[in-house]
Amino acid sequence: MQKLILASTSTLYGGEYLEYLLPTLKSFFKGVSTILFIPYARPGGISYDDYTKTVIKAFEAIDIKVEGSHTSKNALQAIEESEAIFVGGGNTFVLVNELYQQNLMSVLKQKINSGTLYLGTSAGSNIAGLTMQTTNDMPIVYPPSYTTLGCIPFNINAHYLDVDPLSKHKGETRATRINEFHTYNNIPVIGLREGSWLEVKGNDVVLKGELTARWFQKNKDPFEIKPSKKINF
Amino acid sequence: MQKLILASTSTLYGGEYLEYLLPTLKSFFKGVSTILFIPYARPGGISYDDYTKTVIKAFEAIDIKVEGSHTSKNALQAIEESEAIFVGGGNTFVLVNELYQQNLMSVLKQKINSGTLYLGTSAGSNIAGLTMQTTNDMPIVYPPSYTTLGCIPFNINAHYLDVDPLSKHKGETRATRINEFHTYNNIPVIGLREGSWLEVKGNDVVLKGELTARWFQKNKDPFEIKPSKKINF
Repeated sequence: MQKLILASTSTLYGGEYLEYLLPTLKSFFKGVSTILFIPYARPGGISYDDYTKTVIKAFEAIDIKVEGSHTSKNALQAIEESEAIFVGGGNTFVLVNELYQQNLMSVLKQKINSGTLYLGTSAGSNIAGLTMQTTNDMPIVYPPSYTTLGCIPFNINAHYLDVDPLSKHKGETRATRINEFHTYNNIPVIGLREGSWLEVKGNDVVLKGELTARWFQKNKDPFEIKPSKKINF
Repeated sequence: MQKLILASTSTLYGGEYLEYLLPTLKSFFKGVSTILFIPYARPGGISYDDYTKTVIKAFEAIDIKVEGSHTSKNALQAIEESEAIFVGGGNTFVLVNELYQQNLMSVLKQKINSGTLYLGTSAGSNIAGLTMQTTNDMPIVYPPSYTTLGCIPFNINAHYLDVDPLSKHKGETRATRINEFHTYNNIPVIGLREGSWLEVKGNDVVLKGELTARWFQKNKDPFEIKPSKKINF
């Protein structure tokens, strides 16, 4: 049975990396000694090594080791042999492109299907949806496909933002962009605010954290989903 | 000699469609009786017809007729025979995809090169750059390529937004996203704030409007460009 935690963000304002999630991760990863970290979403700024160091430090607090997939001679094999997997945030186009270039998308999906624990944050959560088409990121690379893991039967919009009623900006709001997605696509979308995450066990998906999330479907009015209840999709 | 006006937005907060640009457009389109309007960026919400009606109404104020390219039996021929062209905003992925599907990208470029006046707003401005990779839009369709018209030797980021120093949001800022673009690409990028536009005559590009614009280049610090001066790229 697949088991995933899909967080909107790795870091909350004023908090340390993964800090708000640590109690959850301690219980989720119980019995795991080493997590395979996949840093490929990182589009620069810091190296894969430095990104992995941040993750290593965060997981030290709950006594779990972390290895970067980029340090392995064979990333595909590293995924196949992993105890648990964490895909971090960055740019979703970069992440999806890299997973396809290295032929890792299908093995990652099989591994998750077989019950290997999966943690995603931001871009790492986006790819658990059916497609990456509700990302907020810029198309800085051209991936061979927008199709992603499909562990859940809908898409995620991470870092979901409500409209600022005082804004004078005329660019599209997040809700408008998701509505535009539904002109061309039937896939439901969850707008996951920072501080929210999804807990997936098999086919059950529960919204966690203190906030509600926004649910968008084609030709229907969006509505708010309450936390701690199974999502009825 | 190519002549283009590339505006960050069609509409300013509190203003009517194209209102702030009308004095500029009156002089730019002097002698033109009919503009061909290309509505393909519109990803829903309103129909091509309704979108075109908005444009017709705006140009009535300066006594110029407007025809929608979607009403023509042959859009390619309509472009070839047009006196002047306006590509409106919407979703850049949708626009680029449609231009490729209808085989219009190269004829549009040739037409502009031959001196046909071109107006773009938002997505219609983005496509005048070398690639559409600095769009803010969601990838709601998968275009066959990100390459665009290349009328200017750089890319545009329309609706450019400065960081809100009070924001607690942890999603990437616009500047961060453009820096990430430069990890993978060498193309300079102009962050064009709402109310700004570029006036292109041959190889000369001048920033217009009252605001400065932000210039981003790979491995260099971004800086502000002053309006009414030729951009030195």
